[in-house]
Amino acid sequence: MNTFGQRFKVTTFGESHGSGIGCVIDGIPAGLRIDKKYIQTELNKRKPGLNGYSTSRKESDEVEILSGVFEGFSTGAPITLFVKNQNQKSKDYESIKDIFRPGHADMTYFYKYGLRDHRGGGRSSARESAARVAAGAIAQQMLKELGIEVLSGVCSVGDILGENFDFEYAKTSEIYALDKQKEDLQKKLILSIKKTYNSIGGMVLLKIQNVPIGLGEPLYHKLDGELAKAMMGINGVKAVEIGEGANASKLTGNQHNDQITHEGFLSNHNGGILGGISTGQDIDIKIHFKPTPSIFLPQSTIDVQKNELTLNLKGRHDPCIAIRGSIVAKHMASLVMADMILLHMNSTMSGVKKFYIK
Amino acid sequence: MNTFGQRFKVTTFGESHGSGIGCVIDGIPAGLRIDKKYIQTELNKRKPGLNGYSTSRKESDEVEILSGVFEGFSTGAPITLFVKNQNQKSKDYESIKDIFRPGHADMTYFYKYGLRDHRGGGRSSARESAARVAAGAIAQQMLKELGIEVLSGVCSVGDILGENFDFEYAKTSEIYALDKQKEDLQKKLILSIKKTYNSIGGMVLLKIQNVPIGLGEPLYHKLDGELAKAMMGINGVKAVEIGEGANASKLTGNQHNDQITHEGFLSNHNGGILGGISTGQDIDIKIHFKPTPSIFLPQSTIDVQKNELTLNLKGRHDPCIAIRGSIVAKHMASLVMADMILLHMNSTMSGVKKFYIK
Amino acid sequence: MNTFGQRFKVTTFGESHGSGIGCVIDGIPAGLRIDKKYIQTELNKRKPGLNGYSTSRKESDEVEILSGVFEGFSTGAPITLFVKNQNQKSKDYESIKDIFRPGHADMTYFYKYGLRDHRGGGRSSARESAARVAAGAIAQQMLKELGIEVLSGVCSVGDILGENFDFEYAKTSEIYALDKQKEDLQKKLILSIKKTYNSIGGMVLLKIQNVPIGLGEPLYHKLDGELAKAMMGINGVKAVEIGEGANASKLTGNQHNDQITHEGFLSNHNGGILGGISTGQDIDIKIHFKPTPSIFLPQSTIDVQKNELTLNLKGRHDPCIAIRGSIVAKHMASLVMADMILLHMNSTMSGVKKFYIK
Amino acid sequence: MNTFGQRFKVTTFGESHGSGIGCVIDGIPAGLRIDKKYIQTELNKRKPGLNGYSTSRKESDEVEILSGVFEGFSTGAPITLFVKNQNQKSKDYESIKDIFRPGHADMTYFYKYGLRDHRGGGRSSARESAARVAAGAIAQQMLKELGIEVLSGVCSVGDILGENFDFEYAKTSEIYALDKQKEDLQKKLILSIKKTYNSIGGMVLLKIQNVPIGLGEPLYHKLDGELAKAMMGINGVKAVEIGEGANASKLTGNQHNDQITHEGFLSNHNGGILGGISTGQDIDIKIHFKPTPSIFLPQSTIDVQKNELTLNLKGRHDPCIAIRGSIVAKHMASLVMADMILLHMNSTMSGVKKFYIK
Repeated sequence: MNTFGQRFKVTTFGESHGSGIGCVIDGIPAGLRIDKKYIQTELNKRKPGLNGYSTSRKESDEVEILSGVFEGFSTGAPITLFVKNQNQKSKDYESIKDIFRPGHADMTYFYKYGLRDHRGGGRSSARESAARVAAGAIAQQMLKELGIEVLSGVCSVGDILGENFDFEYAKTSEIYALDKQKEDLQKKLILSIKKTYNSIGGMVLLKIQNVPIGLGEPLYHKLDGELAKAMMGINGVKAVEIGEGANASKLTGNQHNDQITHEGFLSNHNGGILGGISTGQDIDIKIHFKPTPSIFLPQSTIDVQKNELTLNLKGRHDPCIAIRGSIVAKHMASLVMADMILLHMNSTMSGVKKFYIK
Repeated sequence: MNTFGQRFKVTTFGESHGSGIGCVIDGIPAGLRIDKKYIQTELNKRKPGLNGYSTSRKESDEVEILSGVFEGFSTGAPITLFVKNQNQKSKDYESIKDIFRPGHADMTYFYKYGLRDHRGGGRSSARESAARVAAGAIAQQMLKELGIEVLSGVCSVGDILGENFDFEYAKTSEIYALDKQKEDLQKKLILSIKKTYNSIGGMVLLKIQNVPIGLGEPLYHKLDGELAKAMMGINGVKAVEIGEGANASKLTGNQHNDQITHEGFLSNHNGGILGGISTGQDIDIKIHFKPTPSIFLPQSTIDVQKNELTLNLKGRHDPCIAIRGSIVAKHMASLVMADMILLHMNSTMSGVKKFYIK
Repeated sequence: MNTFGQRFKVTTFGESHGSGIGCVIDGIPAGLRIDKKYIQTELNKRKPGLNGYSTSRKESDEVEILSGVFEGFSTGAPITLFVKNQNQKSKDYESIKDIFRPGHADMTYFYKYGLRDHRGGGRSSARESAARVAAGAIAQQMLKELGIEVLSGVCSVGDILGENFDFEYAKTSEIYALDKQKEDLQKKLILSIKKTYNSIGGMVLLKIQNVPIGLGEPLYHKLDGELAKAMMGINGVKAVEIGEGANASKLTGNQHNDQITHEGFLSNHNGGILGGISTGQDIDIKIHFKPTPSIFLPQSTIDVQKNELTLNLKGRHDPCIAIRGSIVAKHMASLVMADMILLHMNSTMSGVKKFYIK
Repeated sequence: MNTFGQRFKVTTFGESHGSGIGCVIDGIPAGLRIDKKYIQTELNKRKPGLNGYSTSRKESDEVEILSGVFEGFSTGAPITLFVKNQNQKSKDYESIKDIFRPGHADMTYFYKYGLRDHRGGGRSSARESAARVAAGAIAQQMLKELGIEVLSGVCSVGDILGENFDFEYAKTSEIYALDKQKEDLQKKLILSIKKTYNSIGGMVLLKIQNVPIGLGEPLYHKLDGELAKAMMGINGVKAVEIGEGANASKLTGNQHNDQITHEGFLSNHNGGILGGISTGQDIDIKIHFKPTPSIFLPQSTIDVQKNELTLNLKGRHDPCIAIRGSIVAKHMASLVMADMILLHMNSTMSGVKKFYIK
């Protein structure tokens, strides 16, 4: 259950306070140039401690390639990436080892598995997303060779909503903000929230450009279904919208339908997907993150023996997980796209014949 | 790609205007009492032509059991359900066989597969959801034996939003409305939209009650991830929210966190899921349906040869797919839950030992 | 668990004495010409009651196509095939409904599932292989378009072993015999065995010709591994050998290694597979079938309550299941090959680019 | 494609001459005591350089646990095991980097993937089996808690066939010989073969004891089918027999059928499996290994450009891969059994209810 994808398959492993975090990527076509530096660049965007807007846990998050790459290219064998943990402070968690933190997976893991690795959330930690990013960075190298671009950025922090989106700008913004005009307000909100020991939610936009027509495998591996699963499976995500999204439920058919001319669609309310298959237009997704559950205000909770208590959490946490979450979202979407790229190759007999009959 | 689920696996087949629609359900534990009447009852809720709020295509949608049931019980073998098509009017579709209807999967299927069964949308037709409902009705029989209840209803039609929700009331409402007070307004809106040859979106609520703690398989088969995929894979769905949903992105941590006492949680902003695992609280989901793409107003589009034309669609269609969609959503959620029920049984060594060591 | 294959996926359903036997084939590329007559021809080769060398149960085994074919071609949607049961004599089985027949799956099904469809073995009946043949016949249509040929025949019956193999001859032999010279002896043995109410084992050869190099997905979906699974999963098979097979364990390296010249290999001890991947040589497989467990001699056994009794079975059975088994083996191998054909298309980046970049 | 199993899932990675060999095991129930020493003990049995009967490549094969174990127990998270490579002599392979060694996967990997990691066979190396053994050792810890024992040993080397089998004796024999009486002859044969720069095949027996009735998932994940796949997927295996095996094809029904009394079966020709499901008797398997393809005699072959040449291989290799192969076979069988243990838990509604309803 720690494997994502059908043909471009990623299996992740590791815990917040174990040896490290890693992934095995199986199904990468042989002959893909693997740029380790690019993986590192992407990991650096996600890594903690970058600036005052994220947790102060510092991790170098240096990636090692343990298998599958020979002379700079994928060989068809599984590629294993590993990121060692360094800045663990497991002692921080000793005091809460029997306590269920509100908004966290502590209680559900305990009841599901009958025990729990309490150190930093163990497997349920957001730290696991380093493996998702590392794998996604390889997926992106494949997508790039096909011209597909996956972009993301932070649209809103709390109720400060961006309106004009610049995905290029977001790449270098400290909070990956899409709207330069709103960035300062968003930053201020984060800092003020942090000062009051609280946290805040946020919304992320995802845009996938230059998508080939035909990606997505109906009916139970539709492109939108898989993207929704990938996004909702990121820690803290509570809603996923595609194209017009929630607003579609308020529109009429003639408002929502994307009419077509010989030059293409006249609008993109459907967000680049019809019947679960890509239309060739941009794929537009909105992802809503809840506020970080780790806050430093007193909270009512219980322990393993169901004793009530007031929790006064200490530690190091992001005030707004949507920020680093925007990087994770981009990489999860890249994994979905890479998988769909491979799956689609079996769609027609003419494609099969072209491959086999010379 | 026409299979849904890992252990409670449903493979569906059939087209809008072929012999019929069916499913093979594999992984049903032996000894489950199979009530054919219940399957029929659920199919009847989804079937077209029930009243003035849905399409006038009439189908008896009578279910046959082709395999897997012996003396009223599942045997462990795959159960096959089949619903014959009857009221096909394939000729209705002759005139559009080379035309891509806006908002439909016509174009994407054509480009993906190099050909297309144009009769009523073929495989992409909402008619396929009969198979989902039939399978879901069997999943529900399993869930019921464990006390789990899956409920759904229509919350909003266009901008007429329900506020007080009565899932029992919804069961017998002609439009499966959750809010008795708003039902009339919602009905009126549907009829007025229908008269103007247009269609309208809507929002559906889903509630799952009496859920065992521990369901959901982290990290890539989380309960919320799987539910999101199941919902987003229903024809016409553009957004899925869990618990607080999109609104979570506007809240602070101390607003959103569900604090805990020895009697349970003090709130349910997380919608019954933490870390991808059920908490035992109700699971609450919002599902946003776009307006039916089939409208009877002139629309710009192209044909297979990329010729531009004005489409004047005729035929029989639902003015608001959210209504019958609410039934489909309930059944898709039931399939997810049944699958998770089976998967969770492998979670602990103590469970394994209890099963094998007498 | 009733699904076979990863990309060319076949899900079968049905019981010996239910409505019928069928399959859903998912993953067939769109645009494959589907010849229903060919499916019927292959089903006819497997069907019971053909001549005195098989059971006298007569079934017309007429195939219906329930979905997935439009105007003679696959559409990319799942293809469903169904074969109605006709000549059931369930009453034959009333007397043994609580008795475990030696050599049959009666006991294991009962203990696994807590109940059992005793009518003709239910799901465990060899009758299920009709679905395998029907699906295999479609796989073969795909293989034929690529020039791949899958052949089979009966090599030995009991200890009467064929020596010169003519796969063309086998096609029309009443017992699918490979060695014309030995056929009469083999037939006589079968008839004499039948007269004594006994049954006899047999060995089948499989040959796959004109195989592209590169099929097989190491390390856990190797071509030989998948073929072994497919063969061993056929009712009554107890051994599978590839190439030199069991004899390989007696040879030295310089006897067994297939040396190579620029014209190809000098021998084929490896049976066309190296490292789990096809070499382009013929794939040669030996499959050993046990004697039919249904014999009409008194046998000691027990019933559901563990009472001992002497079983005097009556009914209609094949004296040698290897005969019809040879047809099933051919079709199972075809399913494996079709699956591998699709899987291999993702192996290289140059293949991916050729598909997507025009 | 580097993943084995459905619920007890093992993904392996690594190459002969890369950083190392490892595996991620997903689906291990939480609360299993993980004994690292036991994993090491099993790895030591497989490791090269133990004595004069295997290759002289020396590897310490020390296992590290990278994830999934907390305070000595599995947590439900994936367990990652890693074994560093140490004694690589990649230079040994420089001279053959463009040459296809007869009997090896060199040619097939090259044509499948368009490139090849020539260093020691890369991914196709028998060295990968260290990961299988490490994973199998964890599966065995689970099986042992349920009382199931998986045993193996070498039955024949070339034509020196053991007759009396002592699985306990095999555990400490230098060549894992099952027949103490034949061991010396077998050893002498190996040494004489080695002296002549040749290699020799061998046959391995596998016995699984104390198996619960009911394991195996018909129809396409039968216990015998899965075991056959697991065995045939081991490097060098060319035949797999279950129970009476190939000999079954020569017997009559009344010879082969296992009759039953209230005390159990009177024989075990079926090798502990009926209808793909375990009967509770011992599971008996024969596995035939070809001779090591690496021999040090001149052989005809070609290179990447199809030039013919005479290959004079040098390096370090096992004279008889069946010896270390017997250890690998035991562990692969353990993986199958662990998987089937988990899968079977979903078989009946009464089992589901017992788990969920307290």
